[in-house]
Amino acid sequence: MQQRTEHSLERLLPPAAIAPQRLHQAMRYAVLGGGKRVRPLLCHAAGELTGADPARLDIAACAVELIHVYSLVHDDLPCMDDDVLRRGKPTCHVEFDQATAMLAGDALQPLAFQLLAEHSLTDEAQQQLDMLRLLAQAAGSRGMAGGQAIDLAAVGQPLSLAELEYMHIRKTGALIRAAVLLGALCGKPLAEAELARLDHYAKIVGLLFQVVDDILDSAADTATLGKTAGKDAARNKPTYVSLLGLAGAKEKAAELRTAAHAALAPFGDAARRLGELTNFIVDRSF
Amino acid sequence: MQQRTEHSLERLLPPAAIAPQRLHQAMRYAVLGGGKRVRPLLCHAAGELTGADPARLDIAACAVELIHVYSLVHDDLPCMDDDVLRRGKPTCHVEFDQATAMLAGDALQPLAFQLLAEHSLTDEAQQQLDMLRLLAQAAGSRGMAGGQAIDLAAVGQPLSLAELEYMHIRKTGALIRAAVLLGALCGKPLAEAELARLDHYAKIVGLLFQVVDDILDSAADTATLGKTAGKDAARNKPTYVSLLGLAGAKEKAAELRTAAHAALAPFGDAARRLGELTNFIVDRSF
Repeated sequence: MQQRTEHSLERLLPPAAIAPQRLHQAMRYAVLGGGKRVRPLLCHAAGELTGADPARLDIAACAVELIHVYSLVHDDLPCMDDDVLRRGKPTCHVEFDQATAMLAGDALQPLAFQLLAEHSLTDEAQQQLDMLRLLAQAAGSRGMAGGQAIDLAAVGQPLSLAELEYMHIRKTGALIRAAVLLGALCGKPLAEAELARLDHYAKIVGLLFQVVDDILDSAADTATLGKTAGKDAARNKPTYVSLLGLAGAKEKAAELRTAAHAALAPFGDAARRLGELTNFIVDRSF
Repeated sequence: MQQRTEHSLERLLPPAAIAPQRLHQAMRYAVLGGGKRVRPLLCHAAGELTGADPARLDIAACAVELIHVYSLVHDDLPCMDDDVLRRGKPTCHVEFDQATAMLAGDALQPLAFQLLAEHSLTDEAQQQLDMLRLLAQAAGSRGMAGGQAIDLAAVGQPLSLAELEYMHIRKTGALIRAAVLLGALCGKPLAEAELARLDHYAKIVGLLFQVVDDILDSAADTATLGKTAGKDAARNKPTYVSLLGLAGAKEKAAELRTAAHAALAPFGDAARRLGELTNFIVDRSF
């Protein structure tokens, strides 16, 4: 499935030979050949729940992944986290230059919305507008970009667990939630209560992902991680591990996993892949 | 009309009191209280051509303006043009900080798409998807962001007139074209040939706007302009004035004005406001 996403991204990104070449090269460099593709996996798994056409899910999955990658490119810039390593390669601004990296991110974002607007993803155009709205909200000032702003302001600040959660619901959670909902919306309509339950699952798995990320960041070394390890602690950024300790963070992850499975249970076998993915997300940390 | 746009933007931007406050303050600082609002004016004037509801035009006009403003905020950053003055005020990263300015731009962009997705702008949802696609393409790597990349690469390079035009069609022209088309699409459908003619007008007026901007930049002083004057020449950036001379650039502007009016003529009185706007754009340079 990761390979399927890779092929789709490869196909949907502008070719490197088309002008402006350097910008397109930077966009492809940032997006292709790396990443766990957790959001596309979640999008496809949620689409399986509603019997969505995999070709439609490819588009929705790539749109979400493009938003994710653009945020990484900008987050790595010197004025933000100033990081030199991402997915085992030099970051985009190191490989190219700062201006090109910023513009690559700036251009990846509208490409995501373009994909959702120009491909037929649902039988109802109005539902597709809802998908666009969901992705835009997830990327915006009360979603991912807002979470990053809160994260910036939190460096060196003592945060409570509630404040940390508030940040992560936006910074990471909003886009993971969008991945799940967009996948499900590509298929047969869910009843309102079912959609609410799936949304509840999506919010849990978003937090779970962040808790696991903090555990990995504190425990792994840079080579394993493919990005600079331990940097949050080095910068005095609050994390689940700094607040709860390593054992406490693992306990939190286990609790969230149980809650995620509980939210999926009423869907029965249709949610099998979402359940497997939930386990995959947790297990990479142990 | 500028005031109407100001009120709409004021209403559609997240309130400064809502978290994350500093990000929302920066977004509002960058967007409100300045600018000629040429794109919103063009959007409303094009909507008048097709009898569009002004309330719908407000949304489309604000979406285009938000994309424009985000590009200014990023363009002013130290890794790009490194400018300190915009619309007569300190640039966003000077007033706040670089990271906040970058995130403000990052968050203004999805807000534009969100507006087009969450408000009813046409009677057909499919047509609204077309509007979203148009705006996304205009903002993307083969539109505005691509034009900025070409502009970056061109600093200190000798460009031909054709190459300069190629850049401006993307950097400025794409979004001006989107402003006109989105405005028109909010109203009664145009016949294919009429839409093509309006599109032709939009492309001309986009170039015209840039020629005039170059003339102003070469001739005016910083106080009049509200942004740093003469900076393109100082950085050895090619402009219409550097390639054609001031008189040649004014001649070019006059020719484009004539061509713009010729494209509008068959629409008769319905295009009156578009014609007036065209003159307004040129006359500010003489």
